[in-house]
Amino acid sequence: MSTQKPTRTEISSLGEFGLIDRFAKHFESKNPSTLKGISDDAAVFRFSESGPATVVSTDLLVEGIHFDLMYHPMRHLGYKAVVVNLSDIYAMNAVPRQITFSMALSSKVSVEAVDELMEGVKAACEEYKVDLIGGDTTSSLRGVVLSVTAIGEAMPEKIVYRDGAKVGDLVCITGNLGAAYLGLQILEREKQLYLSNPDIQPVLDEATTLVGAQLKPEARKDIVAALARVELVPTSMIDISDGLASELYHICKQSGVGALIEESGVPIHPDAQLKALDFKLDPITCALSGGEDYELLFTINPKDVDKVKYLPDIYIAGEIVPKEDGLKLNTKGGNLHEIPAQGWKHFKP
Amino acid sequence: MSTQKPTRTEISSLGEFGLIDRFAKHFESKNPSTLKGISDDAAVFRFSESGPATVVSTDLLVEGIHFDLMYHPMRHLGYKAVVVNLSDIYAMNAVPRQITFSMALSSKVSVEAVDELMEGVKAACEEYKVDLIGGDTTSSLRGVVLSVTAIGEAMPEKIVYRDGAKVGDLVCITGNLGAAYLGLQILEREKQLYLSNPDIQPVLDEATTLVGAQLKPEARKDIVAALARVELVPTSMIDISDGLASELYHICKQSGVGALIEESGVPIHPDAQLKALDFKLDPITCALSGGEDYELLFTINPKDVDKVKYLPDIYIAGEIVPKEDGLKLNTKGGNLHEIPAQGWKHFKP
Repeated sequence: MSTQKPTRTEISSLGEFGLIDRFAKHFESKNPSTLKGISDDAAVFRFSESGPATVVSTDLLVEGIHFDLMYHPMRHLGYKAVVVNLSDIYAMNAVPRQITFSMALSSKVSVEAVDELMEGVKAACEEYKVDLIGGDTTSSLRGVVLSVTAIGEAMPEKIVYRDGAKVGDLVCITGNLGAAYLGLQILEREKQLYLSNPDIQPVLDEATTLVGAQLKPEARKDIVAALARVELVPTSMIDISDGLASELYHICKQSGVGALIEESGVPIHPDAQLKALDFKLDPITCALSGGEDYELLFTINPKDVDKVKYLPDIYIAGEIVPKEDGLKLNTKGGNLHEIPAQGWKHFKP
Repeated sequence: MSTQKPTRTEISSLGEFGLIDRFAKHFESKNPSTLKGISDDAAVFRFSESGPATVVSTDLLVEGIHFDLMYHPMRHLGYKAVVVNLSDIYAMNAVPRQITFSMALSSKVSVEAVDELMEGVKAACEEYKVDLIGGDTTSSLRGVVLSVTAIGEAMPEKIVYRDGAKVGDLVCITGNLGAAYLGLQILEREKQLYLSNPDIQPVLDEATTLVGAQLKPEARKDIVAALARVELVPTSMIDISDGLASELYHICKQSGVGALIEESGVPIHPDAQLKALDFKLDPITCALSGGEDYELLFTINPKDVDKVKYLPDIYIAGEIVPKEDGLKLNTKGGNLHEIPAQGWKHFKP
């Protein structure tokens, strides 16, 4: 009820990372049990003097921003909400053990819809062997909001941060990029068609893989298990949630290095490759800026190259270079392009 | 895009606790590191074989449901969002160490408003000596949503759950109830006056304590510290967030007991006592059903009564009785009244 009109700066002028950077510097950790605060995929703390540390990550998923209930089945949404958080735990080279799951629900949502949502949560808990140990349930005036906190464990010396990449390290990417982004394009196209004529039934069968990658992604627990098996601890790691470019930017900024990526080394999903042409999109752009792949991006010391060579689904896509050399992509045509620091653009106007 | 119309049950027909009960039974904990799952103020886990366990609690705060930005200053809101979560950690007889803080913000919210919010978060972190270690920041289509996860530590044998109350135990209440509820009534009254005539300035000075209790509550870290000092571990404990009646109901239900409360033993805030008359409300009703006091309700073995007798701000308000005797209030007039199981009514129509 104040009448004074203060200066007003739009959040969109800062973007998400600008906003976080703005206040993160005011929050220095003071408790000795805090091993890592804001700035990585997950935070790390340990209350005992020895044994595993705890890794914790949290995400807020908002209807209309992160998901569209018009085409996202509640069951898949519950599954995805859990998986994207577990992905952050794996990105620390840790193993998730528990989650909390909170939801704000509008009166539009029925008990049956919540049952579906929770079935998805349960399926994810079973698949990844994590326990749902808490949460909060409330109403909302409009829209569904989900908040998930994932908790995992790892010995402190095995935890991998974003800031450990060194010049000469090899850049590794798991799996296939671009599928989730193309899946989203397909769903959005079918939604527009449906809105213009509700009698038209969506044609999604020919794109099950891409649509599935968007609606029900998986986290790379197999990769973290494989790294442990060959006793390889990456020098840095991050999960690819906002697109390869954005994640590379985080690794390079926090490690104080640059990177040279070979376009031919970036694993793009074959279906995404094809579908990109349909949408008149460049496949490499989809991989760089698409996001929601939930694959892992990590760097390794070159002496460890033999350890990853025979692991399935890990691709060496480039190397870490001095900071002055920036972030560059060597295209298939042999041109060197600057990789733009693409952030997550939810706040952009 | 499904055309099938499934059965539809309104969430309001179940209520919050009904909804949680509905799915909680499907989520049994399987990891040996999970010591306590859904059903208490906080969950408990431990990754090491000895040393402290970790206690974790999470809350979702939704604009228009939990707070009204018309009268809730952003700074106080940030403070309160943290404190109400820390209160859950104290309610386990644990000490909070870390929090994560996530926010979904609409375009209505300016960077300056977020600065204020985060100043409140920082003030709470400093007051309670906890580190902000992570969170998430996103946009929302409408309204502000905050999600806080609080993390604390305690030796497993010191953790107090809701299910340990025994017949004959004494029921203890800290501090003064009803203040936050009366504060809310005052704020709502001034809001209505302001909406009907924006030239009227709110008169809040005469009610600073009550309004303050609503807008900027504190958690009882002093009580948990005092209990540790006298080496008293309560048999059960819960924080009073939804009103004394609701919390008593949880303790009794989970402990399989009843309770007999003396109206004369329930500590009601003197200002709330007076202000209740203004609003033609019964002070004991405000204490039983008001909520947001963030005081502690706990039970102790009668052999420990000397330990609490000389601690400040702890009131013995009744005793635990057999389940068959139910939850009863012995009024000042000498009548025995059933205490209704008042839940949190956000989902009620």
